[in-house]
Amino acid sequence: MLPGINESVCMKVLVTGASGFIGRNVCRELSECGSWETVAASRTAPTDLPAGVRFEAVDLLDSKATRDLMLRERPTHLLHLAWNATPGAFWSAPDNLDWVASSLLLMRAFHEAGGRRVVIAGTCAEYDWKEEPLLREDGALRPATFYGTAKDSLRQLAFSAAQTLGFQLAWGRVFWLYGPGEAPKRLVSDIAAGLVANCPVPCTYGVQERDFLHVRDVARAFVAGLESDWCGAFNIGSGVATAIRDIAGILGEVSGKRDLIQLGARPTPANEVPRLVADTGILRERLGFSPTVNLRDGLAETYAWWERQG
Amino acid sequence: MLPGINESVCMKVLVTGASGFIGRNVCRELSECGSWETVAASRTAPTDLPAGVRFEAVDLLDSKATRDLMLRERPTHLLHLAWNATPGAFWSAPDNLDWVASSLLLMRAFHEAGGRRVVIAGTCAEYDWKEEPLLREDGALRPATFYGTAKDSLRQLAFSAAQTLGFQLAWGRVFWLYGPGEAPKRLVSDIAAGLVANCPVPCTYGVQERDFLHVRDVARAFVAGLESDWCGAFNIGSGVATAIRDIAGILGEVSGKRDLIQLGARPTPANEVPRLVADTGILRERLGFSPTVNLRDGLAETYAWWERQG
Repeated sequence: MLPGINESVCMKVLVTGASGFIGRNVCRELSECGSWETVAASRTAPTDLPAGVRFEAVDLLDSKATRDLMLRERPTHLLHLAWNATPGAFWSAPDNLDWVASSLLLMRAFHEAGGRRVVIAGTCAEYDWKEEPLLREDGALRPATFYGTAKDSLRQLAFSAAQTLGFQLAWGRVFWLYGPGEAPKRLVSDIAAGLVANCPVPCTYGVQERDFLHVRDVARAFVAGLESDWCGAFNIGSGVATAIRDIAGILGEVSGKRDLIQLGARPTPANEVPRLVADTGILRERLGFSPTVNLRDGLAETYAWWERQG
Repeated sequence: MLPGINESVCMKVLVTGASGFIGRNVCRELSECGSWETVAASRTAPTDLPAGVRFEAVDLLDSKATRDLMLRERPTHLLHLAWNATPGAFWSAPDNLDWVASSLLLMRAFHEAGGRRVVIAGTCAEYDWKEEPLLREDGALRPATFYGTAKDSLRQLAFSAAQTLGFQLAWGRVFWLYGPGEAPKRLVSDIAAGLVANCPVPCTYGVQERDFLHVRDVARAFVAGLESDWCGAFNIGSGVATAIRDIAGILGEVSGKRDLIQLGARPTPANEVPRLVADTGILRERLGFSPTVNLRDGLAETYAWWERQG
């Protein structure tokens, strides 16, 4: 718990990217746990704003509008999730520059309006992907992509700003995630949508292992980050290695359409890293978090959601 | 020389921070060498715009205004000098965040308007100051200040952007500089102004060594950076170690007021690094630059300038 922050009668968090995949789940989580006044900020209103969450329209690249919003709302906490998340494109999109810029302006405006604690969404793409069986927060960082470099540069600057200007900062490195309502063209959404449509689903052999966490648990981890006094980076993952072929296999099973999954029908990209799994020591021990959704249940729920869309 | 860029009939450079200490000297240098169409961009007009240099007012934090300016001017080259340079304050000023943000928006707008080559002012404060007798561009980087971290983060992101979006980038790390027209409260300006006023000038023992370059030479180094095809960091310094006490001593001599210099009257700050000198191999060999102003002449000129102000 935050000494000095929790003493105040009310904790008020401003969530950016509130209409995104993680953001919608965070708003629901904040609404359910009841101890937060929540302002959901984004350019367009989320479609399903939970009870008690208030929407404020803002273009984060408009520094004056951002400052005005902060001075009007004076949140004690900031959860900054907004970024370009367009599947595929985000890795090298020019607007990664804009998102770094708007993140800096946002942080400064938050601090000037008296804000105390910031949590920002980072990424496992900050790590050196050639390194370790488990990726630890204090391990080697060497982003190989423009997106990863943008997040990595922002993190360095954000921690320096936190120290210099005087606010708390935690940085949640998101690994793989899935769940109902994900954008199409991500791994799980792509397979699920294909199965719902009764199309053959060409996959790689899928022996590469990744760390998957249900989006509700990702959202809970961010809220745990807000509520803790941890200052530093923390991984957001399950800590469990799951082969891509097992994701495809479970989706095949829960749909009853296992025969549509075609392992090996797609070549494995040459630069595919065999294993990327989070060390979750800080998440569990310092933030008191443990996952609530097991992979099979989560994938079944996700498949059912896609069936309802179909 | 730049293959493909110099082929074009006209090279057009947009200079930010054109009304600053380096910027004014860069505009003069560009005006004198004659091969550039120069647009001087800053919030307020430079006081002494050289012949053939055109001023455009812009607030770089206004992303729309910056984009409009770039689309109107379509410069082939960008020399980005603008930053907070308020003596003392810039090391930990909150607006270091704004300057990183505006630099990112500027770079993106430049690239989108068809720009080809960017040169940005970096700083020797990016280096690990505990390391080497000569600081080399490929040496250890560990900024100890908010300002140094801001420049360091911007550099990482700028090089990633250059590679991803496709433009050339050179990054000039400025060491110590001096010359006529410097702001008060810097080392040389402070001593010179004190001597002009016939005040005793309390100094440290001044055994720490720094790398000093006359501002005209600093400006020439930036123009060399624009005109070369070097992509990467390059130091902007003399390569010569000069003890602070020698700076004070020369100023004492050229003013004929050596007795006013009080070495040892001020305590040396506890964290003062004994030696910070640039390796100038890249500057000399890859950019074809060598200094033109020797230290004694430069300091005499600077003292004379302060006398005229007095």
